[in-house]
Amino acid sequence: MENRTYTADAEPGDHVTVAGWVHEIRDLGGIAFLILRDKTGKIQIKFEKDEMDDDLVEAGLDAARESVVSVTGTVDEEPRAPTGVEVTPDGFEVIAPADPELPLDPSGKVDAELPTRLDNRTLDLRKPDVKAVFEIRAEVLRAVREQFRDEGCTEINTPKIVATGTEGGTELFPISYFGEEAFMNQSPQLFKQLMAGSGLEKVFEIGPIFRAEEHNTPRHLNEATSIDFEGAFHDHTEAMDVVEGIVKAAYEAVAQNCQAELEMLDIADEFEAPSGEFPRLTYEEALDRINATGELDDHLVYGDDLSTEAERVLGEEVGEHYFIVDWPSEIKPFYIKDYDDDAETSTGFDLMHPRMELVSGGQREHRYDHLVEGFEQQGLDPDEFEYYTKMFKYGMPPHAGWGLGGERLVMTMLGLDNIREAVLFPRDRQRLSP
Amino acid sequence: MENRTYTADAEPGDHVTVAGWVHEIRDLGGIAFLILRDKTGKIQIKFEKDEMDDDLVEAGLDAARESVVSVTGTVDEEPRAPTGVEVTPDGFEVIAPADPELPLDPSGKVDAELPTRLDNRTLDLRKPDVKAVFEIRAEVLRAVREQFRDEGCTEINTPKIVATGTEGGTELFPISYFGEEAFMNQSPQLFKQLMAGSGLEKVFEIGPIFRAEEHNTPRHLNEATSIDFEGAFHDHTEAMDVVEGIVKAAYEAVAQNCQAELEMLDIADEFEAPSGEFPRLTYEEALDRINATGELDDHLVYGDDLSTEAERVLGEEVGEHYFIVDWPSEIKPFYIKDYDDDAETSTGFDLMHPRMELVSGGQREHRYDHLVEGFEQQGLDPDEFEYYTKMFKYGMPPHAGWGLGGERLVMTMLGLDNIREAVLFPRDRQRLSP
Repeated sequence: MENRTYTADAEPGDHVTVAGWVHEIRDLGGIAFLILRDKTGKIQIKFEKDEMDDDLVEAGLDAARESVVSVTGTVDEEPRAPTGVEVTPDGFEVIAPADPELPLDPSGKVDAELPTRLDNRTLDLRKPDVKAVFEIRAEVLRAVREQFRDEGCTEINTPKIVATGTEGGTELFPISYFGEEAFMNQSPQLFKQLMAGSGLEKVFEIGPIFRAEEHNTPRHLNEATSIDFEGAFHDHTEAMDVVEGIVKAAYEAVAQNCQAELEMLDIADEFEAPSGEFPRLTYEEALDRINATGELDDHLVYGDDLSTEAERVLGEEVGEHYFIVDWPSEIKPFYIKDYDDDAETSTGFDLMHPRMELVSGGQREHRYDHLVEGFEQQGLDPDEFEYYTKMFKYGMPPHAGWGLGGERLVMTMLGLDNIREAVLFPRDRQRLSP
Repeated sequence: MENRTYTADAEPGDHVTVAGWVHEIRDLGGIAFLILRDKTGKIQIKFEKDEMDDDLVEAGLDAARESVVSVTGTVDEEPRAPTGVEVTPDGFEVIAPADPELPLDPSGKVDAELPTRLDNRTLDLRKPDVKAVFEIRAEVLRAVREQFRDEGCTEINTPKIVATGTEGGTELFPISYFGEEAFMNQSPQLFKQLMAGSGLEKVFEIGPIFRAEEHNTPRHLNEATSIDFEGAFHDHTEAMDVVEGIVKAAYEAVAQNCQAELEMLDIADEFEAPSGEFPRLTYEEALDRINATGELDDHLVYGDDLSTEAERVLGEEVGEHYFIVDWPSEIKPFYIKDYDDDAETSTGFDLMHPRMELVSGGQREHRYDHLVEGFEQQGLDPDEFEYYTKMFKYGMPPHAGWGLGGERLVMTMLGLDNIREAVLFPRDRQRLSP
């Protein structure tokens, strides 16, 4: 519609055509108001029954809620209107009528459960607070890419259809690929490492990953958006610097560019970009602090992994983003390098939001012999990964990297209860549609 | 490596540590040169055998090509060196030795066939001209996203695991999803339409699409990167304006920001961003122009689709990007709207590069009854698509959009012979690894 004016741009004195959805109609007798909503906001349309053409009034007041309409008219100041202006219509057209029985109420007056919302995402995203989450999500991805470029990284896209998974056949969705068995990739790990060894050196990718985990929790998805980094000549501490910069850049961009959205979510006052360096706790310090709280039934000992409950307790203790470093090698993946002077301790690290793990990373094993040995110790056949390991014979620099869960970043940033609120069309154990 | 200097940043008088790959060694007797390569370029390292420590000289000259090394030394001006400077080393370390038997020569002196290159992408991307393609690809995606945001679009991510494909079960890769049959999505079409009907109105997505086409040609991929747009209240001509802006923005960004890469590809002189409006030929005009050349064996008649050969002939005639509009409805998908005043003619359009089709788009059918009828006429069960069609009952605005092949955009922009040259790890009928 060439001649359409967004509601936010309608100025007093203008003669405009606005178009959008019928948000609500308030009929006060001699006068009635239709609130029209578009992507920029809402505007009041005034119908004075005795002074206007009957057909026009009838068309306007008969329009079912959520119908798509276009209204032509004059904009006037009106301090009592929600946005300070109103439109007196001289033309009204129903472009796409809505069934009066809506499966979900976009005005937000009637609460809907999450499954109903997900089944009706089109209507759900007409609610300004839900829309705000996805506007912020888009801004997070924009800011993250910008920060990566400022770091000198090149964007890559790696295949989602693969012959073998990063850590073997567990938790992979199988595909039939022209009669051959293949899988949906659970992580770009191997490919981004191959690119760290190429002339690109420092790379990032933002793309879907697929995990056939049976988990069905408020923090797991079977299809998620992974933000991945890999850098040649980086050690794990440098990789941690990069991810700290990325997370801060995302928060700062949202603080700067999404005030309206934060207000819509009612968190503008408390929203703060993290300042100061993220604390780097060793694994042993983490155990000590958790044990000291006395909140867990069991005393944690060296070698234990951290349960969700342990993470929660520690997060409450620390109260801000923090790293856990110096994990026991035995509980980190084999492709993470151990310290040269301490083979029992891994260069792997996690970045935690107080509520949950956001990032897992580390320096990678770049020595061909050690890598092949790692596959064998893991019970994997190195031959199946030859497309990957053989490149380690031809000058693979030391490199480090990490993967950051995009939805977890948005979820923790905005204090969402369920990770599904940060995805348009989530995929989980039960949900495959829409 | 905190103390590393990129070769491009090494200035005369500096004492630096540079690190990268051994590009080549030239031993002239009393003096020898090692050319070290990193992501920013190359630098000459000078070994004077009689004046330097024997161990240092030996370490340097024994390093196999493509080994990863670090060199500490003083930078001096040297007009005869390829970059005008050279490093006189006082320290040399082999960080990761390379096997002397390389499967591919990154110096580019020995040509490699595409399959060998794809099997060894890590080495292949050490060639500056190959790297240049992927630096440009990244810049194209950056510029495209920026242009979308300037147009007021919101970035979305839609699921790649789906219960049903856009056009039914053909050309879909089946997945086993927790025991249920699912598919890898062939297009975000249905999801982006659902979002055009939401409060977001104008959306874009850049992500992978999956097509189980048996084609194995230089212009087809089974996994590709799709650049998708959908806009509420847009008709097909407005959607064409958007894509024209996107393609131009991509070219302009590359012209502006990738001169070094264009030079590396030897196309800097002839590279030009398209100026002027892309011609909009009707389908009938297209047929006439093709027929007038007499180059095809058969005379094309109304209703014929355009073969690859017909596209080639027409592309040579037109010689620049152009649209084909006003296609017969019967050869466009059912979800594309026909003209209101001419049901035989579709609002579908294609954007063509002279070499091939880049974009397919149109105004969508937004009327619930017509849409359901379309599914039925296509032999598809509307009930299977109910998650999609039902949203059309609740105020679906008119909307239009398109999908642009990311790899085709890069391929045609850079004059690449094979679309696989525009993808890091292509997937085709034969290739599933790496």
